[in-house]
Amino acid sequence: MTEVLSYRPRPEELAYTFGGREPVRRVRPGTVLELYTEDCFGGKVRDVGDLPSRVCEFPFLNPVTGPFHVEGAEPGDTLAVHFVEIVPARDWAVSTTFPHFGALTATHTTAMLHPPLEELVWRYDVDVAAGTVRYRARRGDFEVELPLDPMHGTAGVAPAAFESRMTIVPDVHGGNMDSPELRAGVTAYFGVNVSGALFALGDGHCRQGHGEVCGTGVEAAMNTVLIVDVVKGAGTPTPRLETDSALMSTGSARPLEDAYRISQHDLVTWTAGLAGLDVLDAYQLLSQAGEAPVGNVCDPNYTMLAKVDKRYLGAVRPYEGVHDRLRATAAEYLATR
Amino acid sequence: MTEVLSYRPRPEELAYTFGGREPVRRVRPGTVLELYTEDCFGGKVRDVGDLPSRVCEFPFLNPVTGPFHVEGAEPGDTLAVHFVEIVPARDWAVSTTFPHFGALTATHTTAMLHPPLEELVWRYDVDVAAGTVRYRARRGDFEVELPLDPMHGTAGVAPAAFESRMTIVPDVHGGNMDSPELRAGVTAYFGVNVSGALFALGDGHCRQGHGEVCGTGVEAAMNTVLIVDVVKGAGTPTPRLETDSALMSTGSARPLEDAYRISQHDLVTWTAGLAGLDVLDAYQLLSQAGEAPVGNVCDPNYTMLAKVDKRYLGAVRPYEGVHDRLRATAAEYLATR
Amino acid sequence: MTEVLSYRPRPEELAYTFGGREPVRRVRPGTVLELYTEDCFGGKVRDVGDLPSRVCEFPFLNPVTGPFHVEGAEPGDTLAVHFVEIVPARDWAVSTTFPHFGALTATHTTAMLHPPLEELVWRYDVDVAAGTVRYRARRGDFEVELPLDPMHGTAGVAPAAFESRMTIVPDVHGGNMDSPELRAGVTAYFGVNVSGALFALGDGHCRQGHGEVCGTGVEAAMNTVLIVDVVKGAGTPTPRLETDSALMSTGSARPLEDAYRISQHDLVTWTAGLAGLDVLDAYQLLSQAGEAPVGNVCDPNYTMLAKVDKRYLGAVRPYEGVHDRLRATAAEYLATR
Amino acid sequence: MTEVLSYRPRPEELAYTFGGREPVRRVRPGTVLELYTEDCFGGKVRDVGDLPSRVCEFPFLNPVTGPFHVEGAEPGDTLAVHFVEIVPARDWAVSTTFPHFGALTATHTTAMLHPPLEELVWRYDVDVAAGTVRYRARRGDFEVELPLDPMHGTAGVAPAAFESRMTIVPDVHGGNMDSPELRAGVTAYFGVNVSGALFALGDGHCRQGHGEVCGTGVEAAMNTVLIVDVVKGAGTPTPRLETDSALMSTGSARPLEDAYRISQHDLVTWTAGLAGLDVLDAYQLLSQAGEAPVGNVCDPNYTMLAKVDKRYLGAVRPYEGVHDRLRATAAEYLATR
Repeated sequence: MTEVLSYRPRPEELAYTFGGREPVRRVRPGTVLELYTEDCFGGKVRDVGDLPSRVCEFPFLNPVTGPFHVEGAEPGDTLAVHFVEIVPARDWAVSTTFPHFGALTATHTTAMLHPPLEELVWRYDVDVAAGTVRYRARRGDFEVELPLDPMHGTAGVAPAAFESRMTIVPDVHGGNMDSPELRAGVTAYFGVNVSGALFALGDGHCRQGHGEVCGTGVEAAMNTVLIVDVVKGAGTPTPRLETDSALMSTGSARPLEDAYRISQHDLVTWTAGLAGLDVLDAYQLLSQAGEAPVGNVCDPNYTMLAKVDKRYLGAVRPYEGVHDRLRATAAEYLATR
Repeated sequence: MTEVLSYRPRPEELAYTFGGREPVRRVRPGTVLELYTEDCFGGKVRDVGDLPSRVCEFPFLNPVTGPFHVEGAEPGDTLAVHFVEIVPARDWAVSTTFPHFGALTATHTTAMLHPPLEELVWRYDVDVAAGTVRYRARRGDFEVELPLDPMHGTAGVAPAAFESRMTIVPDVHGGNMDSPELRAGVTAYFGVNVSGALFALGDGHCRQGHGEVCGTGVEAAMNTVLIVDVVKGAGTPTPRLETDSALMSTGSARPLEDAYRISQHDLVTWTAGLAGLDVLDAYQLLSQAGEAPVGNVCDPNYTMLAKVDKRYLGAVRPYEGVHDRLRATAAEYLATR
Repeated sequence: MTEVLSYRPRPEELAYTFGGREPVRRVRPGTVLELYTEDCFGGKVRDVGDLPSRVCEFPFLNPVTGPFHVEGAEPGDTLAVHFVEIVPARDWAVSTTFPHFGALTATHTTAMLHPPLEELVWRYDVDVAAGTVRYRARRGDFEVELPLDPMHGTAGVAPAAFESRMTIVPDVHGGNMDSPELRAGVTAYFGVNVSGALFALGDGHCRQGHGEVCGTGVEAAMNTVLIVDVVKGAGTPTPRLETDSALMSTGSARPLEDAYRISQHDLVTWTAGLAGLDVLDAYQLLSQAGEAPVGNVCDPNYTMLAKVDKRYLGAVRPYEGVHDRLRATAAEYLATR
Repeated sequence: MTEVLSYRPRPEELAYTFGGREPVRRVRPGTVLELYTEDCFGGKVRDVGDLPSRVCEFPFLNPVTGPFHVEGAEPGDTLAVHFVEIVPARDWAVSTTFPHFGALTATHTTAMLHPPLEELVWRYDVDVAAGTVRYRARRGDFEVELPLDPMHGTAGVAPAAFESRMTIVPDVHGGNMDSPELRAGVTAYFGVNVSGALFALGDGHCRQGHGEVCGTGVEAAMNTVLIVDVVKGAGTPTPRLETDSALMSTGSARPLEDAYRISQHDLVTWTAGLAGLDVLDAYQLLSQAGEAPVGNVCDPNYTMLAKVDKRYLGAVRPYEGVHDRLRATAAEYLATR
């Protein structure tokens, strides 16, 4: 019998760090979580006049829902989080430029003497039934519909080493990876650093381009269903994703080639272990069969993924088959709710 | 009436630089070129015992076929090269590690005190009819078929500013971009730097993973058919690609985020011009609709592409519709040969 | 009348993060602190047989002494810390390689398939009176004396945005900048992020080369005297240093050019303000008169400094002359202890 | 008996590449060369109204004097170039910002959507007798004298692999390293790639800050005296410098940490060989005794140096003592001219 927990945070319950927070709830492995997440602006940017630098206040950006203490998760284990459903909660979403943030602008890190680019807001219509979002140019009357492809930019656990990190930062604990691969149907794996793992998530996007070049996706509040589970005694050095057809490793670092290296290195060594391949044989196989989906090229660390189709690996069974089990639980949940 | 030129270089005709070479042939715009290209090892790595560091001699690596002088191409124009067909010339191909080359090894640039990784050769069976290449592990008996997806790693024109560059280097003149997107059906655009453009190509891959992480793809000699044309008075700041459904800009640089920036910047400004969008509106649109295919993360410059589906841009007609015209010429050629 | 506080932490009082810790003491602005700091190995590497990967336990590395709550320091203020004296506490010190740490080795970030370099310990004799440390090769009998030049690798305040960071990380709060410029005679400035600033320091080096290429300096416990003060209403975006003759800004980031950019950008804008120069005039002046001392090229962020001789700036008086006042207090303290 | 060759290029003799040029003169090893070099603007920026983007024409930038064919220099040898004297040829010099060039601005590589920073020219008075240059702010009346410290930004030989590179590029053949360490008294070593080495130099600076942050130094035509020599059978993987007191290795690459890595790696392995040290022992020694002078952080490759005082290495005699011999020749030349 599957336990279901529905949770919608009150504004004062939103978290702005991974680590350094008390859990909002304690749940058992196998629990289905029905969660509401606010958008990265805390819902304060609602129209083109709501410039984020005016309506938002640092550091109250990119709120996450959680953290959740998952019973039995201890350092050295892996937290498995299966994403059952990610549905935009409103019929609109927004995206913006933001002063000194984005890939094609000077930033506080890539520091330059230029004044910031103009701060602009784009408001999208969201049509969940049609599966589209509608882009409208700010100058001129160009409009176009883009496919809805909901995802969470931010998901992770409490970091190791007593650290607490802003939710805008992606690193080995997860965080703001901003990868379109984190969509429904995926199981995400996070190495557990503290008792209970302390999972949280937020930053829903109706969709985003590769690299999130202007710094934001089509930002939206979400109603998200996920299932948490614990794989005891299994380490996960950097967040990994599994779908029915693919395995993925993430890497978050600067410069971007190091994000690429971390993700590819992890996928090489992970798949070598799973498939019983010599490491250089796995290196060769991924050199020809591997993909490299770009996450973000704008956050404090950049994120890239390494991805491989399972059919090229023979019969592999990562994490004792937890993905298949959670898929079954998800199907059961969806059939009976 | 389409002119057709068939050309198979003698070994002493192979080139190892872009720039600094006399043309091997002069051709008129609109000419169909039927070319043979050698593999990146000059065909000298034929089996697992042929270690490239022994059988190949620097700088005679990565030979290209050409250069071709295209009549009427002058600095300030754009050379359009439509890839009609790329077919592996042999029933085998090879891939290797190479000392201090690749993304997960110390290199002469990312210099470290480690000895090189082991140098190994993998030999692939190539089945053009079946559309597959067969990978075989060097240790153990793991085998798997991967889809054939032929491409050219290296294609470009003579550089500007009296430069001559090794064929292994990608930069604004093209060169060793190592992108799987350079496959049949694509039209590539290169800014012309010298009279006649001096186009050359080589480094065929039966397929490659994103980033070419070990440093080489499934390297093969190719029989390739392409059509060259000139767009007068149209500049191209970095190589671009067009297919029936997409536009792409390349960026080649280090660190990898600069390759990303160059490609995204060019696609933003190019599509803004094509679609009549404000630059920030185009930035926003690509932030949500854009893709970022990874080329190489192992060569002297890394290469990334920015890509967008044409249907998100309204009715655009890049380079006066040359892609559609060359598609038609290609269809005619294929129907009548 | 100057207050003096002497403090030697018990082992269980050592801190391993900036942020997330209760202060060990509360002090008034102007207080002289006589502190003992342990070395980065917690004193556990005492001889060449003490491999750090065996005798040290993550995350109990790089302990700092503190944090100290400085009364009256509030967000938006600047904490000034004048280093009066840094004296090695023992007649020996150590340096080591460490698996996958350093600039000329694969790391967990610059991830590669190489096994780690050999882990080795070098033990130095320290002669404070002679002002030397003695290097001895591990293989062969080469020995040489190097000048003693004591410094603190790690010094900083609690981060902003509810963050807590491992002491090994340098960032805008300070931390593990590993710059030889942080020696006696310097006043360091840190932007205050939390009430009381929560200053801590550690990681004494008898000396270090530029970039700390192998990952560690000549690591030593220190007896250090410093004076803390608060400059109300003065912001400091990245840690700055002042000596009798020079001004310096730090930048900590990856890639290394961003550390350079942050430091140069801050020194350009800071000196423009101090000297009444147009920003581009200051840019030009520093382009010709500026120095760029390298801190570390091995830590989670790399650190560079921008430095300029005060005599090129006319009569400037940063932070209301606090450096000169603290120099006077230091002289008085030294004369009377 | 020392041979002396005086050479002042006519404008049409200036070169804009390393490689791809016929020698202007053939000289014997040991020859003293008295050379005139034009400034990086070809002498066309003479006052604050001469904006380089208007008065200069790409690719006719950064002209070099040469190349010189040094008899007997063959691939595998090392060319030694001792700088006897570098004297500004005029009583003025200039520095400028340049659109999309410099460390604190968007560039064509670090591509961004910002318009360029303002293009400005600063004119310096040069007083060779007093040993100063005078900076004058463009806005306001701030002026200051800076010490004259003449150097060459650009010096090198023809590249390997049939390459020809713009003079603005630094790489393993030398080129536009823009290091203040290339001053009189230094012997520079370059690996020979082609018969005769084909040495050229230019881009004199009256002085420059570390990193040349705005993109240009105090640019000046120079009267320079140097002596060329050949060390047979001695390889030089990246340019090296020797003074009476120090050894240096250069590294030119992006990102900046790779320039650091190349330079430190070369100095570690070079000094290990010279001093008979184990490589890890040399790594440790340089980690504590090494310096890292910054060259440029603005050119197509960034340049850093690794430097160590000879007294920390015992009795070493690089390149068979050629530096000492050339110092003696220089003294003789200076005494007798």
